[in-house]
Amino acid sequence: MSILLKNVIIDGKKKDLFIEGKIIKNIGDNLDLKSDEEIDARGEKAVIPGFVNCHTHAAMSLLRGYGDDLSLKEWLEKKIWPLEAKLTQDDIYWGTKLACLEMIKTGTLAFNDMYFFPEAAIKAIEEMGLRALVGLVVFDLSESGQPKNIEKTYYRLKSKKSDLIDLSIAPHAIYTASKENLIWSKEFAKKENLLLHIHLSETEKEVDDCLEQNKLRPAEYLDQINFLGENVILAHSVWLSGEEIEIISRNKSSVVYNPCYNLKLVSGEIFPYKSFKDKNVNICLGTDGAASNNSLDMIREAKFASLLQKHKEKDPTFLPASEMLSVATKGGSDALRIDSGEIKEGKLADLILIDLNKIYFTPGLNFVSDLIYAASGDCISDAICNGRIVMRNKKVEGEDKSIKKSKKIVEGLARGVN
Amino acid sequence: MSILLKNVIIDGKKKDLFIEGKIIKNIGDNLDLKSDEEIDARGEKAVIPGFVNCHTHAAMSLLRGYGDDLSLKEWLEKKIWPLEAKLTQDDIYWGTKLACLEMIKTGTLAFNDMYFFPEAAIKAIEEMGLRALVGLVVFDLSESGQPKNIEKTYYRLKSKKSDLIDLSIAPHAIYTASKENLIWSKEFAKKENLLLHIHLSETEKEVDDCLEQNKLRPAEYLDQINFLGENVILAHSVWLSGEEIEIISRNKSSVVYNPCYNLKLVSGEIFPYKSFKDKNVNICLGTDGAASNNSLDMIREAKFASLLQKHKEKDPTFLPASEMLSVATKGGSDALRIDSGEIKEGKLADLILIDLNKIYFTPGLNFVSDLIYAASGDCISDAICNGRIVMRNKKVEGEDKSIKKSKKIVEGLARGVN
Repeated sequence: MSILLKNVIIDGKKKDLFIEGKIIKNIGDNLDLKSDEEIDARGEKAVIPGFVNCHTHAAMSLLRGYGDDLSLKEWLEKKIWPLEAKLTQDDIYWGTKLACLEMIKTGTLAFNDMYFFPEAAIKAIEEMGLRALVGLVVFDLSESGQPKNIEKTYYRLKSKKSDLIDLSIAPHAIYTASKENLIWSKEFAKKENLLLHIHLSETEKEVDDCLEQNKLRPAEYLDQINFLGENVILAHSVWLSGEEIEIISRNKSSVVYNPCYNLKLVSGEIFPYKSFKDKNVNICLGTDGAASNNSLDMIREAKFASLLQKHKEKDPTFLPASEMLSVATKGGSDALRIDSGEIKEGKLADLILIDLNKIYFTPGLNFVSDLIYAASGDCISDAICNGRIVMRNKKVEGEDKSIKKSKKIVEGLARGVN
Repeated sequence: MSILLKNVIIDGKKKDLFIEGKIIKNIGDNLDLKSDEEIDARGEKAVIPGFVNCHTHAAMSLLRGYGDDLSLKEWLEKKIWPLEAKLTQDDIYWGTKLACLEMIKTGTLAFNDMYFFPEAAIKAIEEMGLRALVGLVVFDLSESGQPKNIEKTYYRLKSKKSDLIDLSIAPHAIYTASKENLIWSKEFAKKENLLLHIHLSETEKEVDDCLEQNKLRPAEYLDQINFLGENVILAHSVWLSGEEIEIISRNKSSVVYNPCYNLKLVSGEIFPYKSFKDKNVNICLGTDGAASNNSLDMIREAKFASLLQKHKEKDPTFLPASEMLSVATKGGSDALRIDSGEIKEGKLADLILIDLNKIYFTPGLNFVSDLIYAASGDCISDAICNGRIVMRNKKVEGEDKSIKKSKKIVEGLARGVN
């Protein structure tokens, strides 16, 4: 399978780009190559790497708008948990498809997921043609979240690993996974060469409780039990001391900034971007689930992310658009061990085309700044993941069916709960 | 002229809506009325009032992306002012058209503008069919900004006032308009029954300088010279004491919250929404100009606005989606003295249709929450301003020409400056 992109704008210049198999093979002028598919952008579309959403609960798209403007406790206890308890494998399959659809339409081609029924999620992601790291959730209070069951699930799903699908071990958080289960996660991940994905220091309460129970702050505690390392992705990470940031840096773990969720459900602190950056920590961007954000649009998330840091640092020059774009693409690919995040020969062909005729690219003085500060995800016209076209001229196969099916499922769920 | 909207969703129910002239005449079931135009929404589009953008510099859309990620001083002195010095009447006309186009496409039907060459702006706004309050800018350092010239301009433009166009007196700020000119503005506005539009307490420096020069804080100073009143719209208003908020409340002035601009160029403080609300001050939403925001999308602005206040108040229940929607519509209409902001018989027909098939309205559990937290301006399919269709099925008359012309103008400008 090969794709030839004619007359696409790369770094401000009109070029041709040839994809062979899953790889960007050539970038040049007037490439005269035979291909199975051809897209002529006529100089009206720019190409950039697909966004990498580094912290999601994809199937929660089914619960979008269910219980907004509530406290975290009320949101979880009165709304989310009762509904989640009713979710079936089939619901997760359709919910994940719905999330993938929104991601494709807004330019996200890879994501880091953590939710129930990983098998159903994998089926949905494969069908949609996206790349994902699917977490097997370690959770003390659930039967499926026990190490022995995670192990069984892992060996059952190991054969599903592919170019597109990888598996992670995902202890939900330090307060929902015991020390033993965290240590087991670390060791199992090491044995199988897996990534680890965990919520860290999302609220002040988590820090206070950890200090009380362990006489250590959360990252110190994880370090003490040797949990941290290059293969660890830490979501949220807003309540951290300088010493903890030092620890995360020393362990080469990645951190995920989730600005909308952190504001909307009031984590209380703003992500310490500058401290992480000063210590060369790999920083990624994530939306969290659509039940809380309520959008999976990484462009809109990026604007929040950059503006909030300018405010925090009292410096309008801080976290400029070009750096923000890199965090939302390369930062994520590096964390997820995907060889993409750049439009370069030899890189994986995970790329999106951007319609420059959209009004927010007018007058068009600075493409990256227009993209991050002016655009929204609806500027994405075409998407290619792993060398396969997953959206062409804004159309995704089966999108109407996905939307209808999701609405039907939720009508049923809501009837049962309300 | 009459328009019949069939099967539109109003407050969750399928209804028909009949517009006669500029007024919403009937809302009911199965209205069997003859009309000049008919739009059948087939139960797939919701209708809400158009957004009212209460602080803009419309023609600055020409300068979008020109000088981002700079300090306010550098942005103004090195980028914006040198380019602005070159802007002609014709540039302002096309720049305002570009802004109107973006506003229509993202659902804004009325705006409060402050910029050069009001005559050119008026021509553009009239042609685009939007409603605006066009400010005559009082500015000590410019010839056109002197009271005697403002007066001349006003009497020359008075005949242009219409259903769509109103004029305001717009002293730029307390540090760019002398006490005499502020007092003149107030008196002239009183005589001609005009609104006043001014930037207030946008930066800490403005407050410090005012304290030094007048021994009063900015709102106290404006109160002392009797500037404030029901006809005053205060933009930004982030650095205010409790006493100043009390003064603004007592004078029944309106305040405009500009979250993106305030973060991006680092005003330093977050708009004191709760204090204003507690004192029953009318609160509006604004984007500021596209050179700084860089978007005029009021839906995306509304998400920033709500989430930032939740964070500030450490309360996820604060400023819920429904209240935010009201601020972005009715708050603005009230400030601009427009009898719209609600979908009700007898109100002005300033309304927008929202395509519920967009993915972020799936599953569709809470329309208002989906609109404010999940959607972006590209969900708007049709727009009617003052009883006239200004966008139908996402198409606005002359949009391609507007975009092309803006690009051409800016190429010329940029060549001259760089």
